[in-house]
Amino acid sequence: MEKHMQMALDLAKKAVENGNEPFGAILVKDNEVVATSENQITTLSDPTHHAELGLIREFCSKNNIMDLSDYTMYTSCEPCFMCSGSMVWSNLGHMVCSARSRDLNEILGEPLVDSSDIVFQNSHYQPKVTKMILHEEGVKILKDYFGK
Amino acid sequence: MEKHMQMALDLAKKAVENGNEPFGAILVKDNEVVATSENQITTLSDPTHHAELGLIREFCSKNNIMDLSDYTMYTSCEPCFMCSGSMVWSNLGHMVCSARSRDLNEILGEPLVDSSDIVFQNSHYQPKVTKMILHEEGVKILKDYFGK
Repeated sequence: MEKHMQMALDLAKKAVENGNEPFGAILVKDNEVVATSENQITTLSDPTHHAELGLIREFCSKNNIMDLSDYTMYTSCEPCFMCSGSMVWSNLGHMVCSARSRDLNEILGEPLVDSSDIVFQNSHYQPKVTKMILHEEGVKILKDYFGK
Repeated sequence: MEKHMQMALDLAKKAVENGNEPFGAILVKDNEVVATSENQITTLSDPTHHAELGLIREFCSKNNIMDLSDYTMYTSCEPCFMCSGSMVWSNLGHMVCSARSRDLNEILGEPLVDSSDIVFQNSHYQPKVTKMILHEEGVKILKDYFGK
């Protein structure tokens, strides 16, 4: 699990090098990485191209797949409302994150919100959830970018 | 307002004719329609291509715009968690819907959830919201498709 999360964290750092925000994600099936993704909101002038939603959109569309229940996504930070919703619509099997949305909220000085919990608890489908894998490094990446 | 909503409702019906789900949306600036969109999840094998998110992604990306605070979106149904999130990330000025998410939940036999309220109230940015424009027709479109 740590090995896959390290890939997602490395993609988050690469996203910053590429002029975007510090978020990365990978998709895994049967222990094999089938897709990788970075935040690309600036590069593409697309406020919806977060790492997670961008990955789901491109992977599903390219491979003609609408059901990700056999897949696990590793993401550097707990998905926002938008990306959590995209996991519901694609029936993602398992979401694993490093930093929590409340870690990001705290760095930004915003009210603490558990974004994925709120979406999953109020939806017809709930992915399995594992939080805080390589948590310290995940939070550090956010602090380095968003911290004052 | 009714004229613009009628366009969104007509797009929802067109989406069904095109093999997708009954949702449509348009984007308006200074009383002029600048973009239109239908649900295309089946056509594109993309579970994220709801009318609203698809519109925001394509409009922002094509026009190199990241801030929709001067724009109003008319959508046939209150946006889901995912699409509501995309409205936050693009700073949408005003969201106008016909049917409410709780109308759709009721038709589907799901717990009643005010999806856009939940997202906007827990976010750093809140679009202006107007619900239930041409409400009866909006609900009828959903019942015709999802009703038993």
